[in-house]
Amino acid sequence: MTISALQRELAAFAAERDWEQFHTPKNLAMALSGEAGELLELFQWLTPEQSSAVMADPGRGQQVREEIADVLAYLLRLADVLDVDVEQALTDKIAANRAKYPVHLAYGRANKYTELGG
Amino acid sequence: MTISALQRELAAFAAERDWEQFHTPKNLAMALSGEAGELLELFQWLTPEQSSAVMADPGRGQQVREEIADVLAYLLRLADVLDVDVEQALTDKIAANRAKYPVHLAYGRANKYTELGG
Amino acid sequence: MTISALQRELAAFAAERDWEQFHTPKNLAMALSGEAGELLELFQWLTPEQSSAVMADPGRGQQVREEIADVLAYLLRLADVLDVDVEQALTDKIAANRAKYPVHLAYGRANKYTELGG
Amino acid sequence: MTISALQRELAAFAAERDWEQFHTPKNLAMALSGEAGELLELFQWLTPEQSSAVMADPGRGQQVREEIADVLAYLLRLADVLDVDVEQALTDKIAANRAKYPVHLAYGRANKYTELGG
Repeated sequence: MTISALQRELAAFAAERDWEQFHTPKNLAMALSGEAGELLELFQWLTPEQSSAVMADPGRGQQVREEIADVLAYLLRLADVLDVDVEQALTDKIAANRAKYPVHLAYGRANKYTELGG
Repeated sequence: MTISALQRELAAFAAERDWEQFHTPKNLAMALSGEAGELLELFQWLTPEQSSAVMADPGRGQQVREEIADVLAYLLRLADVLDVDVEQALTDKIAANRAKYPVHLAYGRANKYTELGG
Repeated sequence: MTISALQRELAAFAAERDWEQFHTPKNLAMALSGEAGELLELFQWLTPEQSSAVMADPGRGQQVREEIADVLAYLLRLADVLDVDVEQALTDKIAANRAKYPVHLAYGRANKYTELGG
Repeated sequence: MTISALQRELAAFAAERDWEQFHTPKNLAMALSGEAGELLELFQWLTPEQSSAVMADPGRGQQVREEIADVLAYLLRLADVLDVDVEQALTDKIAANRAKYPVHLAYGRANKYTELGG
């Protein structure tokens, strides 16, 4: 299913329930952040190694999968009500990041681009 | 561009910079939540009406677009390292939500499904 | 009870349960953000006016109160393990904000200080 | 300085700038979550060990200190506009957590109380 098709599904889901009144960009940004927080909570006490193996536990793996879906749902819904083309926005962002994080400066370093020197 | 193609671009971007060492699920969930927080900050002082008009200001609109891209980037990257199919996860979640939020109970109400009675 | 006394209570609570191993600054910052997300979810579908009246509903009010406590708990615990004096940090921040947000420029405006001109 | 005194300072700071109009509980919960996200970003690429040593770098340490202050500022402001006694709320929460996380079940385990069995 394409991103547009998912957005049409989510829009129909909201419209059928008369939820468009709640789906202001402000509220959707809050819901997105709340779901990102729930995803975070699944990882907060795990070591890095445990986090890499999280899908090996079926119950925990299913929770992770559902929270990822929830974040995506609100992100696509927000982009839809704002009329932002998410694929284009991401393609543009990757291009911008190529300039901000040139390989020879960013290699093996997690610093923000403002701290990379160069 | 498909979701898989975007994920391949993001994976290549990380690999070229030797950033895979930083991209544990735990760290990516943190980065996702941090970007969701930056998106939130663009809306925090706006009225609901102002939030609906946010794209009319080119500068602010561009910021919103970039933060949406950042959230999507980390979400797709996280799903990739966990081998979660995000489209399938979202399709499944919508189906589950149809059962949790039947139209006759959820119509016009923003309550959580546990509070819908019925 | 003073902030230091609350921090001693929280430290004892963790020590009794052998939870100090989980309380790295990284993990505590995640837990703090997760609880802030739960607090956010209590407000996400409310109008500004409904949000101002949230404590009038005893059940919802109690949830808000508990989430505020959870955020404070992780914030104090984080400051404690990092040896940050939160009262001093906040006093210093207010002083810095007086300089960044002079009344004649910031009056009635929610802009970030970088956008205040002047 | 006591918590009440800090809250009076923060209230005066807002009142002097005519910012009370922006300080609805909904908006303050957003600002709190946004600041928690900024704090999170300071830790996102650090190993647990690096996160424990974060204050050893003066520049990074100062950033952490400021973000902790920002989170506390919005938390105290939110509690103030909602008339929640944060010290009492936290004391009550610790007492409730003693019951939810008895030492013999929770010792050395990071599980949520619903997963502790018993």
